[in-house]
Amino acid sequence: MQMGMIGLGRMGGNMVKRLREDGHKIVGFDMNPESGRDVDSLEALVAALDAPRVVWIMVPAGAPTDSTVEQLGDLLEPGDIVVDGGNSKYTEDRDHAAALAEKGIGFLDCGVSGGVWGAERGYALMIGGSDKDYETVLPIFQSLKPEGEYGLVHAGPVGGGHFAKMVHNGIEYGMMQAFGEGFATMLRSEYVTNPAETMTSWRTGSVVASWLLDLLDNATKEDPELKSVPAVANESGEAKWMIEAALELGVPVPTTAAALWQRQTSRGGADDILRVVTALRAQFGGHVTKVDEIATH
Amino acid sequence: MQMGMIGLGRMGGNMVKRLREDGHKIVGFDMNPESGRDVDSLEALVAALDAPRVVWIMVPAGAPTDSTVEQLGDLLEPGDIVVDGGNSKYTEDRDHAAALAEKGIGFLDCGVSGGVWGAERGYALMIGGSDKDYETVLPIFQSLKPEGEYGLVHAGPVGGGHFAKMVHNGIEYGMMQAFGEGFATMLRSEYVTNPAETMTSWRTGSVVASWLLDLLDNATKEDPELKSVPAVANESGEAKWMIEAALELGVPVPTTAAALWQRQTSRGGADDILRVVTALRAQFGGHVTKVDEIATH
Repeated sequence: MQMGMIGLGRMGGNMVKRLREDGHKIVGFDMNPESGRDVDSLEALVAALDAPRVVWIMVPAGAPTDSTVEQLGDLLEPGDIVVDGGNSKYTEDRDHAAALAEKGIGFLDCGVSGGVWGAERGYALMIGGSDKDYETVLPIFQSLKPEGEYGLVHAGPVGGGHFAKMVHNGIEYGMMQAFGEGFATMLRSEYVTNPAETMTSWRTGSVVASWLLDLLDNATKEDPELKSVPAVANESGEAKWMIEAALELGVPVPTTAAALWQRQTSRGGADDILRVVTALRAQFGGHVTKVDEIATH
Repeated sequence: MQMGMIGLGRMGGNMVKRLREDGHKIVGFDMNPESGRDVDSLEALVAALDAPRVVWIMVPAGAPTDSTVEQLGDLLEPGDIVVDGGNSKYTEDRDHAAALAEKGIGFLDCGVSGGVWGAERGYALMIGGSDKDYETVLPIFQSLKPEGEYGLVHAGPVGGGHFAKMVHNGIEYGMMQAFGEGFATMLRSEYVTNPAETMTSWRTGSVVASWLLDLLDNATKEDPELKSVPAVANESGEAKWMIEAALELGVPVPTTAAALWQRQTSRGGADDILRVVTALRAQFGGHVTKVDEIATH
């Protein structure tokens, strides 16, 4: 089928490639003139598509997506459909869908997993929106998803795709932290002399066999103790949103929270907490801590 | 090769079957006369094997394994090797190895992952002990492990196999808890109408693709909301040991600890904590909580 793609970065660009290989006619637009875009404006993108149109947004969440949705609301016609494949928060989807619905334009939110490997493996897709809009865009989803029976789900109404992706990423935080805690415990112990090889051995036949473990094998092949990797982890925002949602729903998610807090701690988020602890130790017990005396193991 | 197997339960029995299919001559013993045992005593087991002997222990950790090691110490000869394939704690391995070493008997500890699926998929094995003993028993390990390049590691000296298995299971706790937190958050939210189908869709192409997710698909196929499963989780002891080891080593493992604490809470371990909280709320704020008024969502 025919579709417009807005945003030809690493994700959008690879997705266009995969879609074209599957025979779809994709018109691509990006703000960057060197992106390999087919048209040089949103107006030209809309003009190049036959109605009813499908336009996929693959730009950063927040202001860039808001602005794109707003412009598309002015340019598209009733019966057209907008798909947000970026990392928008599920609450933003409802706002976008409502604004577009006023003009008769449909909306689907699509959580996309797969990262840089998606071009080769296919992208795991989670969709939120109406059955009717989902069915219309299904041929595109079918081309983007991995082969086989899994990798695509119509998760729920508008917001459900990004909610599912948010939860997916929250789970990912917990799994990665769990692997890290195990690796670190073995690395510091005298009992296991080759933690990287031990973890690699679990790739087959063990209960923790997983794609993340396969990727960890790649990383430790280059550096078995990972000492060249910074001991600082960034966050994408989705675990934070999941924890916020779980707090509202009354679901305790201590593993996800611990994983996020360890990342925040690694970036200095706990520094002022630890200053209080160290100040109070000095006050009540005379435990003066000088930074150059701290045991760093 | 020839080997004795002590313990013909679910794990030991399946392992004997897999070893015999691969051409090894196994002499099996179990306390239970209806186990399909080949001999009716440890003495007979030792007598049925040619020296130097290899005897694999597959009985519950603690007293049963202690007693078996002690008896084998009296029955075996210098040059024989004992393999503990049960779930002993890594510190117990050192005691067992030291007692056997006094009599010239070798010792290997072997962590085994795979559970009831191991008979079909092969068992992921983690071995602790000397290079020499490891090489001697290697043909047995090769037959038990899954096909392919993974599934077997010589993790370190005595204790290293069970230390690795302990860490493996600790990671498993964190991963299972992470999946649970994600599932529960979606189940209670209005955004995702089919949490089980959503999680199943991640089996291919997503970052959280894993064997545990494959197993969760089995479970939710029968009961998509898992309401027939008790909301209580037991523990095997290994996460607790890993957390204890990590505490000594100075490695923070909050995700593993949170996973264990949730299981302990589910079995009533936090009841007295919550009585304190509720008693104090009543004291300072007059918040009287009657059990039949508690919102259970």
